[in-house]
Amino acid sequence: MSQFLVFGHQNPDTDAIASSYGWAYLERTAFGRDAEAVALGTPNEETVFVLDYFGVEALRVVESAKAEGVDKVILTDHNEFQQSISDIREVEIAAVIDHHRVANFETANPLYMRVEPVGSASSIVYRAFKENNVEVPKEVAGLLLSGLISDTLLLKSPTTHETDPQVAKELAEIAGVNLEEYGLAMLKAGTNLSSKSAEELIDIDAKSFELNGNNVRVAQVNTVDIDEVLDRQAEIEEAIRASQEANGYSDFVLMITDILNSNSEILALGANRDKVEAAFNFKLENNHAFLEGAVSRKKQVVPQLTESFNG
Amino acid sequence: MSQFLVFGHQNPDTDAIASSYGWAYLERTAFGRDAEAVALGTPNEETVFVLDYFGVEALRVVESAKAEGVDKVILTDHNEFQQSISDIREVEIAAVIDHHRVANFETANPLYMRVEPVGSASSIVYRAFKENNVEVPKEVAGLLLSGLISDTLLLKSPTTHETDPQVAKELAEIAGVNLEEYGLAMLKAGTNLSSKSAEELIDIDAKSFELNGNNVRVAQVNTVDIDEVLDRQAEIEEAIRASQEANGYSDFVLMITDILNSNSEILALGANRDKVEAAFNFKLENNHAFLEGAVSRKKQVVPQLTESFNG
Repeated sequence: MSQFLVFGHQNPDTDAIASSYGWAYLERTAFGRDAEAVALGTPNEETVFVLDYFGVEALRVVESAKAEGVDKVILTDHNEFQQSISDIREVEIAAVIDHHRVANFETANPLYMRVEPVGSASSIVYRAFKENNVEVPKEVAGLLLSGLISDTLLLKSPTTHETDPQVAKELAEIAGVNLEEYGLAMLKAGTNLSSKSAEELIDIDAKSFELNGNNVRVAQVNTVDIDEVLDRQAEIEEAIRASQEANGYSDFVLMITDILNSNSEILALGANRDKVEAAFNFKLENNHAFLEGAVSRKKQVVPQLTESFNG
Repeated sequence: MSQFLVFGHQNPDTDAIASSYGWAYLERTAFGRDAEAVALGTPNEETVFVLDYFGVEALRVVESAKAEGVDKVILTDHNEFQQSISDIREVEIAAVIDHHRVANFETANPLYMRVEPVGSASSIVYRAFKENNVEVPKEVAGLLLSGLISDTLLLKSPTTHETDPQVAKELAEIAGVNLEEYGLAMLKAGTNLSSKSAEELIDIDAKSFELNGNNVRVAQVNTVDIDEVLDRQAEIEEAIRASQEANGYSDFVLMITDILNSNSEILALGANRDKVEAAFNFKLENNHAFLEGAVSRKKQVVPQLTESFNG
C-alpha cells in the first residue's frame, strides 16, 4: 500500500494521466516518497493510443482514497474538489501541480502548491524533473509530451505558453518522436467519435463548475469534422437532458472542437442559455452557435461563462 | 502608476512586508514587470526596527487596488480573501507567493501560484532570486532574513522547514549581520507592548478565519513576560468585546506568546469557547489557559480550531 496517491481529474484526459504518472515517478525518485499514480477513470481513446505507443500500462482506477487505505494525496492537472476524488475533503492534500484557475479548493494545513499558467500540467512536471536533476525516462517523456500536445492541440491553442514549444522540443527528443507527425496521429486517435454512444461522447472530457450557485457542466469533444457530430444532434441532446436530470446540472455546454481549423461549435442546453449567449456574444440557433478561434475551455469558455453568470 | 501592486496581508507583519518588497524587486529585475510593493497597513514595531536597520522606507499604504488605478495584483504571505485588499474580488490575481493553508481563495483565470510549507514567504522569495540568478541586494536580504526570523521566532517554531536554517545563514551573510544577535534584537523590538493601548495590542497581528460559518479572529502578540500582558487582562477583554461587536467576530482568540521559552497563553472570548477548549484539550480559567510549546498560529492553533469547529 502506497503512502501517497497521485491522480489527475475525473474523466481523465491525456494531461491528467501523464502529469500524475510523471509526478509520481519524480516523488519516488527525487523526494523518496512512496507514491503511486492512479486514475479517477479509464483512459480515453487518445490516451490509449499514447499508452500503447510508449508501452505504459493504464493506471489503476480508484474511487476513494480511504478505500485504498491512504490519507495523503497529490493532485495534478486539477484543484477543484468537484473534479477530484470522491473523499477529497477527508484526506490531506500534500501537493497540487496544476495549470488551471484555482476555485472550490481549500486545505486546513500549509501544502506544496504549484500552479503555473502554462499549456499543460505535464509542462510543469517536466520543469520539476530538470530542477531536481532527475533524468526523464523515455516513456515518461513520451507521456509528458503527449499531455502537452493534447492540452494545446499541438501548441496551437491560446493556452500555449511561450515556454511550451521548447518543452515540447526537448521532450520529443527524449521520447524519440517527430513532434508534428506523432502529435497529429495522437490527436486524430482521439477524434474517433463514431464508435461512441451519445452518452459516452458527452462524457469523454467533461468538467463541472459551480458558477454563481449553478451547477454547470462544460464538455468538449475533438473532431476533424464538426458537421459529422452535429448530424447526431438529436441523440446528443437526449443524452445531455438525461445527464442533466441524473446529475442536477443546471446547464450543459458542449464544445465541438475542430482540431484542424481551431474553431468550435457550442451546443448549449439548460436554464441559463441567455447567460451562455451573453458570454460569447452570439445567438444560439437550434441550440448551437459557432465560436470562431475557440479551442480552449479553460481560457476561452469558462472565464466568459463565469463572468456572464456572475453578471 | 504601476501595472502590478504587490502586497502582503492586512495588519502586515515583517514577513508580509519583506516578501512583498522582495518579490516586487524580483518582478522588476527578472521578469521586467512594472511592479510596486505596497502595504495594507502601517508597519508594527518589529518591522519598523527592521526597516530602520536596513535603511528602507516604509511601504506606501493602500486600501483599494482600483483606487490606485491598478487591476492586477500579486499576493505574498497570504491568499485568503478576508485577509487581503478590500477589492480583491474585482481585480486579477496574477500571482500568489505564500506558505499558509489555501482557503477562501479563487480566481477566474489560471495564475502563477507558489505555495510551499516553509517557515516564511520570504524563504520562497529568496529561492526565486536564486532560481532566476538575480543578485540579492543587501537591504533586500536583510528584509527577507527578518521575515524568516519573525515568522519562525529565530528558527525555533515548528513551522521552520528543514531548508530554512541554510536560507537564514545565506541571507545573514549577504545582509552582513550575526543571525542570533540581530534576530534576538529584532524580535525584542516587537515585544514592547507597554506603549500600546489595548485596542492596538489586539490588532498588532490579527487575522480572520471563517470556520464552519463562524467569523473567528485569531490574534497574536509576542512578549518576554506573559504575566506582564495578563496584568492588563481587564482592559484587553474590554477591547476584544468592543472589536467583536464592531466587526461581528463570533470568537476572539488571543495568543500571548513567550518568545524566549516558546510557549503561549491563550485568551479566548466569544460564543464557542467550548470549541476552543476542545481544540486544545484544556480548560479556560478566567478566560485563559496555558498552551505549552505553542508559538505558531498557522500550525498549532488554526488547524486545531478548524477541526474543532467542524466537529
